[in-house]
Amino acid sequence: MYKRIRDLREDRDMTQKQLAEYLNISQATYSRYESGNLDVPSSVLIKLSEFYKVSIDYILGQTNISKRPTEK
Amino acid sequence: MYKRIRDLREDRDMTQKQLAEYLNISQATYSRYESGNLDVPSSVLIKLSEFYKVSIDYILGQTNISKRPTEK
Repeated sequence: MYKRIRDLREDRDMTQKQLAEYLNISQATYSRYESGNLDVPSSVLIKLSEFYKVSIDYILGQTNISKRPTEK
Repeated sequence: MYKRIRDLREDRDMTQKQLAEYLNISQATYSRYESGNLDVPSSVLIKLSEFYKVSIDYILGQTNISKRPTEK
Protein backbone atom coordinates (compact mmCIF):
# COMPACT_ATOMS: atom_id res chain seq x y z
CA MET A 1 0.00 0.00 0.00
CA TYR A 2 2.89 2.35 0.68
CA LYS A 3 4.98 1.59 -2.37
CA ARG A 4 4.49 5.13 -3.62
CA ILE A 5 6.03 6.60 -0.48
CA ARG A 6 9.27 4.83 -1.34
CA ASP A 7 8.99 5.66 -5.03
CA LEU A 8 8.42 9.36 -4.37
CA ARG A 9 11.48 9.53 -2.14
CA GLU A 10 13.70 7.62 -4.56
CA ASP A 11 12.54 9.72 -7.52
CA ARG A 12 13.85 12.76 -5.64
CA ASP A 13 17.10 11.00 -4.70
CA MET A 14 16.39 11.49 -1.03
CA THR A 15 17.38 9.24 1.85
CA GLN A 16 15.15 7.73 4.53
CA LYS A 17 17.19 9.77 7.02
CA GLN A 18 16.29 13.02 5.28
CA LEU A 19 12.61 12.16 5.25
CA ALA A 20 12.70 11.09 8.89
CA GLU A 21 14.23 14.45 9.78
CA TYR A 22 11.59 16.33 7.82
CA LEU A 23 8.86 14.38 9.58
CA ASN A 24 10.58 14.70 12.94
CA ILE A 25 10.54 10.96 13.57
CA SER A 26 13.23 8.32 13.86
CA GLN A 27 14.66 6.73 10.77
CA ALA A 28 13.55 3.35 12.12
CA THR A 29 9.95 4.51 12.27
CA TYR A 30 10.13 6.01 8.81
CA SER A 31 11.59 2.78 7.48
CA ARG A 32 8.68 0.85 8.95
CA TYR A 33 6.24 3.12 7.10
CA GLU A 34 7.87 2.37 3.76
CA SER A 35 7.99 -1.35 4.40
CA GLY A 36 4.35 -1.39 5.44
CA ASN A 37 5.13 -2.65 8.92
CA LEU A 38 3.55 0.39 10.50
CA ASP A 39 0.44 2.28 9.47
CA VAL A 40 1.24 5.80 8.31
CA PRO A 41 -0.67 8.26 10.52
CA SER A 42 -2.95 10.71 8.73
CA SER A 43 -0.81 13.62 9.94
CA VAL A 44 2.19 12.09 8.16
CA LEU A 45 0.17 11.51 4.98
CA ILE A 46 -0.67 15.21 4.98
CA LYS A 47 2.97 16.21 5.53
CA LEU A 48 4.16 13.93 2.72
CA SER A 49 1.48 15.34 0.43
CA GLU A 50 2.72 18.86 1.15
CA PHE A 51 6.36 17.87 0.81
CA TYR A 52 6.04 16.12 -2.53
CA LYS A 53 3.15 18.27 -3.78
CA VAL A 54 1.06 15.25 -4.65
CA SER A 55 -2.43 14.23 -3.56
CA ILE A 56 -2.99 11.83 -0.69
CA ASP A 57 -5.04 9.72 -3.09
CA TYR A 58 -1.90 9.40 -5.19
CA ILE A 59 0.25 8.49 -2.19
CA LEU A 60 -2.20 5.72 -1.32
CA GLY A 61 -2.37 4.41 -4.87
CA GLN A 62 -5.97 5.45 -5.54
CA THR A 63 -5.08 7.38 -8.68
CA ASN A 64 -2.19 7.63 -11.08
CA ILE A 65 -2.59 11.39 -11.36
CA SER A 66 -0.23 12.89 -8.85
CA LYS A 67 -1.38 16.47 -8.71
CA ARG A 68 -2.90 17.83 -5.55
CA PRO A 69 -6.40 19.29 -5.51
CA THR A 70 -5.94 22.96 -6.39
CA GLU A 71 -8.85 24.59 -4.64
CA LYS A 72 -8.93 24.57 -0.87
CA MET B 1 -8.65 16.38 11.55
CA TYR B 2 -11.45 13.86 11.20
CA LYS B 3 -14.41 16.21 11.32
CA ARG B 4 -15.31 15.33 7.75
CA ILE B 5 -15.68 11.65 8.62
CA ARG B 6 -18.49 12.58 10.98
CA ASP B 7 -19.98 15.12 8.58
CA LEU B 8 -20.05 12.63 5.70
CA ARG B 9 -21.84 10.07 7.83
CA GLU B 10 -24.38 12.55 9.20
CA ASP B 11 -25.07 13.96 5.74
CA ARG B 12 -26.13 10.45 4.71
CA ASP B 13 -28.17 9.95 7.88
CA MET B 14 -26.13 6.93 8.83
CA THR B 15 -25.27 5.70 12.30
CA GLN B 16 -21.85 4.93 13.75
CA LYS B 17 -23.06 1.35 14.09
CA GLN B 18 -23.73 1.09 10.35
CA LEU B 19 -20.32 2.47 9.48
CA ALA B 20 -18.62 0.16 11.96
CA GLU B 21 -20.38 -2.80 10.34
CA TYR B 22 -19.30 -1.69 6.87
CA LEU B 23 -15.71 -1.36 8.08
CA ASN B 24 -15.91 -4.61 10.02
CA ILE B 25 -14.74 -2.99 13.25
CA SER B 26 -16.37 -2.35 16.59
CA GLN B 27 -18.55 0.66 17.08
CA ALA B 28 -16.23 1.75 19.91
CA THR B 29 -13.28 1.82 17.54
CA TYR B 30 -15.24 3.68 14.91
CA SER B 31 -16.34 6.20 17.47
CA ARG B 32 -12.72 6.80 18.45
CA TYR B 33 -11.89 7.56 14.82
CA GLU B 34 -14.54 10.26 14.61
CA SER B 35 -13.51 11.83 17.89
CA GLY B 36 -9.86 11.87 16.86
CA ASN B 37 -8.80 9.63 19.72
CA LEU B 38 -7.46 7.03 17.34
CA ASP B 39 -5.60 7.51 14.10
CA VAL B 40 -7.59 6.26 11.13
CA PRO B 41 -5.55 3.57 9.36
CA SER B 42 -4.87 4.12 5.66
CA SER B 43 -6.91 1.03 4.78
CA VAL B 44 -9.94 2.61 6.47
CA LEU B 45 -9.37 5.93 4.69
CA ILE B 46 -9.48 4.03 1.39
CA LYS B 47 -12.67 2.19 2.36
CA LEU B 48 -14.37 5.42 3.44
CA SER B 49 -13.31 7.07 0.18
CA GLU B 50 -14.90 4.23 -1.76
CA PHE B 51 -18.02 4.20 0.39
CA TYR B 52 -18.72 7.93 0.17
CA LYS B 53 -17.21 8.36 -3.30
CA VAL B 54 -15.05 11.24 -2.17
CA SER B 55 -11.30 11.76 -2.34
CA ILE B 56 -9.05 10.98 0.59
CA ASP B 57 -7.76 14.54 0.35
CA TYR B 58 -11.32 15.66 0.99
CA ILE B 59 -11.75 13.30 3.94
CA LEU B 60 -8.59 14.72 5.51
CA GLY B 61 -9.63 18.33 4.90
CA GLN B 62 -7.00 19.10 2.28
CA THR B 63 -9.54 20.30 -0.26
CA ASN B 64 -13.15 21.38 -0.33
CA ILE B 65 -13.78 19.58 -3.60
CA SER B 66 -15.14 16.20 -2.69
CA LYS B 67 -14.90 14.34 -5.96
CA ARG B 68 -12.53 11.41 -6.27
CA PRO B 69 -9.80 11.37 -8.89
CA THR B 70 -11.43 9.90 -11.98
CA GLU B 71 -8.51 8.27 -13.72
CA LYS B 72 -6.86 5.29 -12.10
